[in-house]
Amino acid sequence: MLPAFSTTTHTETAKRLAREVNTFVDAEIIPNELLLAQQGEQSLRLQSGLAHKARQAGLCGLFYPLSHGGKIASLEDYLLVAEQEGRTEFSQAIFASHTALDAHMLLKFGNEAIHEQFLQPLVSGDALPCYGMTEPGHSGSIPSLITTTAYLSNGHWHIDGRKWFISNANRATFMTVLARTAGKETALNQALSMIIVPTGTPGFKIERQLTMMGHSYGQGEVSLTAVQVPEHYLIGTCGGGLDLMNKRLGLGRLLRAMNWIGLAQRCMDLMGARIHSSRGKFSRLAEKQLVRQHIFNTYQAIAGARELIRIAARGVDAQNPDEIAINVAKMAASHALCIASDCAMQLYGAEGLSDLTPLYGINRIARTSRILDGNDESLISSVGRRLISHYQHHAVYSFD
Amino acid sequence: MLPAFSTTTHTETAKRLAREVNTFVDAEIIPNELLLAQQGEQSLRLQSGLAHKARQAGLCGLFYPLSHGGKIASLEDYLLVAEQEGRTEFSQAIFASHTALDAHMLLKFGNEAIHEQFLQPLVSGDALPCYGMTEPGHSGSIPSLITTTAYLSNGHWHIDGRKWFISNANRATFMTVLARTAGKETALNQALSMIIVPTGTPGFKIERQLTMMGHSYGQGEVSLTAVQVPEHYLIGTCGGGLDLMNKRLGLGRLLRAMNWIGLAQRCMDLMGARIHSSRGKFSRLAEKQLVRQHIFNTYQAIAGARELIRIAARGVDAQNPDEIAINVAKMAASHALCIASDCAMQLYGAEGLSDLTPLYGINRIARTSRILDGNDESLISSVGRRLISHYQHHAVYSFD
Amino acid sequence: MLPAFSTTTHTETAKRLAREVNTFVDAEIIPNELLLAQQGEQSLRLQSGLAHKARQAGLCGLFYPLSHGGKIASLEDYLLVAEQEGRTEFSQAIFASHTALDAHMLLKFGNEAIHEQFLQPLVSGDALPCYGMTEPGHSGSIPSLITTTAYLSNGHWHIDGRKWFISNANRATFMTVLARTAGKETALNQALSMIIVPTGTPGFKIERQLTMMGHSYGQGEVSLTAVQVPEHYLIGTCGGGLDLMNKRLGLGRLLRAMNWIGLAQRCMDLMGARIHSSRGKFSRLAEKQLVRQHIFNTYQAIAGARELIRIAARGVDAQNPDEIAINVAKMAASHALCIASDCAMQLYGAEGLSDLTPLYGINRIARTSRILDGNDESLISSVGRRLISHYQHHAVYSFD
Amino acid sequence: MLPAFSTTTHTETAKRLAREVNTFVDAEIIPNELLLAQQGEQSLRLQSGLAHKARQAGLCGLFYPLSHGGKIASLEDYLLVAEQEGRTEFSQAIFASHTALDAHMLLKFGNEAIHEQFLQPLVSGDALPCYGMTEPGHSGSIPSLITTTAYLSNGHWHIDGRKWFISNANRATFMTVLARTAGKETALNQALSMIIVPTGTPGFKIERQLTMMGHSYGQGEVSLTAVQVPEHYLIGTCGGGLDLMNKRLGLGRLLRAMNWIGLAQRCMDLMGARIHSSRGKFSRLAEKQLVRQHIFNTYQAIAGARELIRIAARGVDAQNPDEIAINVAKMAASHALCIASDCAMQLYGAEGLSDLTPLYGINRIARTSRILDGNDESLISSVGRRLISHYQHHAVYSFD
Ligand SMILES: Cc1cc2nc3c(=O)[nH]c(=O)nc-3n(C[C@H](O)[C@H](O)[C@H](O)COP(=O)(O)OP(=O)(O)OC[C@H]3O[C@@H](n4cnc5c(N)ncnc54)[C@H](O)[C@@H]3O)c2cc1C
Ligand SMILES: Cc1cc2nc3c(=O)[nH]c(=O)nc-3n(C[C@H](O)[C@H](O)[C@H](O)COP(=O)(O)OP(=O)(O)OC[C@H]3O[C@@H](n4cnc5c(N)ncnc54)[C@H](O)[C@@H]3O)c2cc1C
Ligand SMILES: Cc1cc2nc3c(=O)[nH]c(=O)nc-3n(C[C@H](O)[C@H](O)[C@H](O)COP(=O)(O)OP(=O)(O)OC[C@H]3O[C@@H](n4cnc5c(N)ncnc54)[C@H](O)[C@@H]3O)c2cc1C
Ligand SMILES: Cc1cc2nc3c(=O)[nH]c(=O)nc-3n(C[C@H](O)[C@H](O)[C@H](O)COP(=O)(O)OP(=O)(O)OC[C@H]3O[C@@H](n4cnc5c(N)ncnc54)[C@H](O)[C@@H]3O)c2cc1C
Repeated sequence: MLPAFSTTTHTETAKRLAREVNTFVDAEIIPNELLLAQQGEQSLRLQSGLAHKARQAGLCGLFYPLSHGGKIASLEDYLLVAEQEGRTEFSQAIFASHTALDAHMLLKFGNEAIHEQFLQPLVSGDALPCYGMTEPGHSGSIPSLITTTAYLSNGHWHIDGRKWFISNANRATFMTVLARTAGKETALNQALSMIIVPTGTPGFKIERQLTMMGHSYGQGEVSLTAVQVPEHYLIGTCGGGLDLMNKRLGLGRLLRAMNWIGLAQRCMDLMGARIHSSRGKFSRLAEKQLVRQHIFNTYQAIAGARELIRIAARGVDAQNPDEIAINVAKMAASHALCIASDCAMQLYGAEGLSDLTPLYGINRIARTSRILDGNDESLISSVGRRLISHYQHHAVYSFD
Repeated sequence: MLPAFSTTTHTETAKRLAREVNTFVDAEIIPNELLLAQQGEQSLRLQSGLAHKARQAGLCGLFYPLSHGGKIASLEDYLLVAEQEGRTEFSQAIFASHTALDAHMLLKFGNEAIHEQFLQPLVSGDALPCYGMTEPGHSGSIPSLITTTAYLSNGHWHIDGRKWFISNANRATFMTVLARTAGKETALNQALSMIIVPTGTPGFKIERQLTMMGHSYGQGEVSLTAVQVPEHYLIGTCGGGLDLMNKRLGLGRLLRAMNWIGLAQRCMDLMGARIHSSRGKFSRLAEKQLVRQHIFNTYQAIAGARELIRIAARGVDAQNPDEIAINVAKMAASHALCIASDCAMQLYGAEGLSDLTPLYGINRIARTSRILDGNDESLISSVGRRLISHYQHHAVYSFD
Repeated sequence: MLPAFSTTTHTETAKRLAREVNTFVDAEIIPNELLLAQQGEQSLRLQSGLAHKARQAGLCGLFYPLSHGGKIASLEDYLLVAEQEGRTEFSQAIFASHTALDAHMLLKFGNEAIHEQFLQPLVSGDALPCYGMTEPGHSGSIPSLITTTAYLSNGHWHIDGRKWFISNANRATFMTVLARTAGKETALNQALSMIIVPTGTPGFKIERQLTMMGHSYGQGEVSLTAVQVPEHYLIGTCGGGLDLMNKRLGLGRLLRAMNWIGLAQRCMDLMGARIHSSRGKFSRLAEKQLVRQHIFNTYQAIAGARELIRIAARGVDAQNPDEIAINVAKMAASHALCIASDCAMQLYGAEGLSDLTPLYGINRIARTSRILDGNDESLISSVGRRLISHYQHHAVYSFD
Repeated sequence: MLPAFSTTTHTETAKRLAREVNTFVDAEIIPNELLLAQQGEQSLRLQSGLAHKARQAGLCGLFYPLSHGGKIASLEDYLLVAEQEGRTEFSQAIFASHTALDAHMLLKFGNEAIHEQFLQPLVSGDALPCYGMTEPGHSGSIPSLITTTAYLSNGHWHIDGRKWFISNANRATFMTVLARTAGKETALNQALSMIIVPTGTPGFKIERQLTMMGHSYGQGEVSLTAVQVPEHYLIGTCGGGLDLMNKRLGLGRLLRAMNWIGLAQRCMDLMGARIHSSRGKFSRLAEKQLVRQHIFNTYQAIAGARELIRIAARGVDAQNPDEIAINVAKMAASHALCIASDCAMQLYGAEGLSDLTPLYGINRIARTSRILDGNDESLISSVGRRLISHYQHHAVYSFD
């Protein structure tokens, strides 16, 4: 049974929802994990069924904007729930939590028509967004290299380009495309824009599906050829795409990091289960210091990352997002998940590598976390640069 | 300039005191650090002078019990101040912060006579405590091996034994001795007791001074031969020594961990200074990713450890100390200090190894932190064991 | 072009063969890797075709016993060739190198009938061995838990039990079964035996196929129900199974470690290619210190592991295998592969996770290497124990 | 007892000398280590006495050029002896091994007058060299920043500048000064030169002594003011200083790395001793997996580093020094020593920090090894750069 979350400062709503999500995950999703992991029709049907059940139980889109069905307003408060959702790799689609980011972006930066045409169906579960930023042949971490172009003519955006590694491309109903709307002579922070493209628009084509560590997440390579969409499908301002991209990344990183912490906790619980299983008892795993070290390291990584996320979330809640805090939280959560899933997999031996446990899937998520939403190296470099430049003006860094 | 600590939940008192301590450290101690580091008469005189100044400025014993001159009641609140104190390795003696632990122990577990004879002079700066637990030839981490004995006869404790690595033994006015008051047949948690021994008592002898990484902290080896002290010099109950020892350790670990975080921050600040110095500019250190990695790692370690301490401190404040939380906080703080001081020393090159910077002293503190107050290995093992045993009864670990 | 291997002490034969294997791998296997990675009929056909080609080119079974078609006698000498083979994860089946271990075991511990019935077809490519040690529900690392039983009756071994994670179980023509031939009262080193069971024998059944990190290596779970094989299918002596198992493990670890080093070198080469690709140039990867650190770490890990393997191999060649040296070499090679494949995957970003590069497959091999043939923890523990016990009798450890 | 070194390819001379050095270290130096560690007159006298004894035993300057009293010609062969010497931090001065580097430099690049005036007394123990490269206020790792100048006039070099962190400056009889002999317009590889300056020359002044982690190694800060020395005190060619500096560094790194390995082995032996001591038995250290992990890690680091040194040494012996191999060997040896000394110190607890064991001194050497002779970061960066540039022309890196 899950404890009462009593020592924290979370709202009663968040505590209640966290408990409900916890129960749902345990009762409905975890028993089906190995099935859900098998790619194919049956698994997709199962997933749809569970999503339907979650929606009926009032557990879908909990972090949608309050105006659009969400139930939790502050990011810090949502941490509690997001961790519970995150305990299984399948929950994002089931709880529609992966679309909360798009919902917030559309609400904040979309006009009314967009709210009606895209946001409304999204929160009711009738539309599925995807995000088209990364391009083949270019480094995803360098936005200045974006080559997809859009120009306005006759009240329409004309878009040409190619995107890849687009999650859910195969099932999405629309894509938010990051495109270049001005030439190389324009400063980057005025040269990019975000435009919505329904996936049914002529010229939008999924060229191929890509797998991620052997698993298909619907990651698609997409071509946009002479695609046309109405002028008002622009999000934010024309030329403001870089700014939007960074805002999206900031929130996106934290939402994902919260899920990762939940998944890391799950790994720790799986370790506990193994150690006390009859197999674990035979091998006297509980007495082995190297096993204790695994669980110690996992605990410490999770506990620390959790608080780093909380601090970063608090900044976002206070409309004062701190990029250093956000990126460090993302890195810490990714690290906690990597440690946790590696230790758990190790403890399960050959079984942990096989399809008899959910560990292999979790391990995959862990590995992608070091590349996704900002790879380790560029985050270390940019956070380091910012910290260093702080010292140009100050002798002391204050952690408050 | 130090920021306003505005985002945290600390009291105004703590914020103000933290700022005052910060100013004092910057103005009075840091300029004298290299002198203070030179062992000898002059340095001791300097230290006494600074301690006197700090007392006059009302910055001494800030975490003493409120009833005895302290100004901050909650451990979490004290975190803010303790970090500022910790920014120099010399502050403990100057701010008398290292005796706060003894003050709390004496107040809580000593009788009135003890309050008068030992606690009162301690808080007024006229007495200096030391703690006699570790014994030569035995593993300090295993209390069952304690061989110093005490028996009651004629209203006096008769004590025989030998202790070593006793901090401040050379200057202390009394020692709290952990002794065996019952035979091997008695369970350990009823066999040990804590008794106060004034260092002037006949039979109390400092056999030799030991250095720590080449530096003398007044670490003494002490023999107790037919020492006699009055019966009421017992702290707590007879046989309750193990329990007291654990209570002392818990609080002691957190107090020290807070100081370590301050010292780690100092190292980060020293890195910043070096990078922007003319030397650092010549070598273009700010642009080097390996330098950025050092500062990133340092930041992350500090920021995480700080929150782990906060959580553990909150538990203590709520009279609900959690041994797992405390030990993990200690390990994280020690780790943060090790990372920070190693990176800073590395960045300063040969100079960082020399007596031209305070880094070598900081590095020494860092190295002892992995042995002191519970060595890494036994903490990993005992925290791991506890976490594992949690799973005997629960399927899930909750971090709240 | 591959250099002349001039500085080493290897035979001309080994140098020549290494060059030929290198050419074959580059020309025939690497261009087909992505196809070979797709599981299914087509990929299996491709693999057979390549195996045929390799046999015709005289590059199959190079480490078979010289009497049975092998071309290299000493393990140290084979290191050169094994690395070249190891550069692709598909080479073992193509060069039949994974059966060299069985060939040596059969030759050394099998009787003449076994040589004729099993060894002969094996080296000619008409038989495929598999090895049945690990059992479901038990810790694979603890041989004392083996429950499969065999007893002799009427000139036949009667075998009952269950094995899992048996590589190549789906295609093997015979299995070497480790079974218990004496009761719990018998000392373990006299209680186990190895018996050959043709996979067509009645009672031998593949219950299911298990995947390894999402990939099927033909890893089977196999039941043996009242299986009967002739008495002379025993390898070694009755009761000598534990000894044989250790001998097999020793040689097996080194052979695999050699392959891993080749695979790790491949990762390094892939990094080099990426850095100098047009993508890598756009991102100026060559100038980034964190990228240089990756390649530095990879180089150091490979170069060190390679020599540790050499030392261990020399011991085996001199009929004086040193278990410490072998296990440390295994761990170092596994570590080098883990580092190398992780760095390479990281450097390739999302592409490195996808099916557009061989990295994901290599990463899988890397992850299994820490569990296979002795998991990290039990190797650390047993090597540590041996090293410690050395000091019971000696004051000094000599590395010569 | 030390084994027979039988499995290696070393000469009988090297084996014999290694055994003699081993005996000398065990019998004469180790029992005196704690005394030698105390700085002061007595310790210096003891050291001189031991140096005298070593010279009489024919164990001094074993790696001097054969023409000048050396007994071992090849660097690889010397590895065996250097490790034995390295087992105590005091051996360099006692075995005069730290001057072998200067001896080789003087022989190879000095003219006959230099051979007579400086090399001859050096090898007979009547002269002591020091090396003046690093300058205050500048990054020691960047030779282009050298500001000490020398110009030729009237058959004399006129030298002005300042050097610091000069080992043995306090006792040296001459210094090899790296100075700028051409202006900024000249390419660096033609702008620096090496000139010998006897320390008694007017204008040569030791400004102050610097300590290294609290210990004085005679590290001096030296000013050269209008110093004049004869023209023929130039070593090598005028302008060839950078090349000489690199040659010196290459050989110097390997010689030191060999000593470090010996010191690391010593740490491992000390661990063994502790584990089997009565204290270690009380704590059952032999059974603790975390202790086994320490000894495992130590072993692996030493064994790997040793072979990396061997490979690099072989290159030097073959007149084909490979900078990558040398730098990687240096880093690996430094790492092995850091691991070994850290683990040993940890295992000894408070005692390991104190002056009751040699560990604290060893730890100091370990920490300097990451800065001395090329700091970690610049070596990682430069080796990484070289490896990467290899791939500009080759698709494959060969480790042979
Ligand atoms: C699971 C998953 C889902 C994704 N979903 C989407 C999606 O829905 N929509 C979308 O648009 N994109 C998506 N992506 C793509 C993602 O945005 C990119 O992978 C990411 O931006 C990194 O870009 P890249 O893969 O091109 O790597 P690159 O930017 O080419 O970087 C590759 C590597 O180069 C090195 N490197 C890069 N920069 C530096 C530096 N400054 N210093 C040192 N080293 C450096 C690092 O090792 C880095 O990992 C997804 C990716 C993954 C893995
Ligand atoms: C700076 C400093 C100040 C100190 N001040 C005081 C003081 O004022 N009063 C006082 O009484 N004492 C003091 N001490 C002593 C301190 O309490 C002891 O050092 C500490 O308890 C550890 O004991 P030990 O040194 O005997 O190490 P041991 O307990 O012998 O442990 C030594 C090492 O053995 C290994 N080890 C031990 N247990 C395990 C295990 N379960 N599993 C695996 N490995 C293990 C670890 O590597 C450990 O570091 C001080 C120590 C230091 C360093
Ligand atoms: C790719 C692959 C191919 C294989 N092929 C074959 C095959 O052909 N034939 C065959 O018989 N088997 C095969 N195996 C099985 C292999 O032999 C076992 O996986 C291995 O022996 C480990 O056993 P286990 O998986 O049962 O793990 P366990 O022995 O249960 O160990 C699981 C984990 O427990 C922990 N642990 C165990 N012991 C200790 C200890 N002393 N101290 C601390 N922690 C410990 C470790 O974390 C370890 O990883 C294969 C395995 C793999 C991965
Ligand atoms: C024990 C000891 C003995 C010595 N003996 C002598 C002697 O006899 N004679 C003599 O001339 N000198 C001697 N030295 C000095 C030695 O040569 C220098 O310490 C060394 O060259 C490094 O220079 P530095 O200390 O000025 O550090 P710097 O070159 O200033 O480097 C300081 C730090 O900056 C960072 N850094 C530097 N470059 C880079 C980069 N490219 N990328 C990222 N980070 C970087 C690293 O963290 C580095 O550690 C000795 C030093 C020691 C420690």
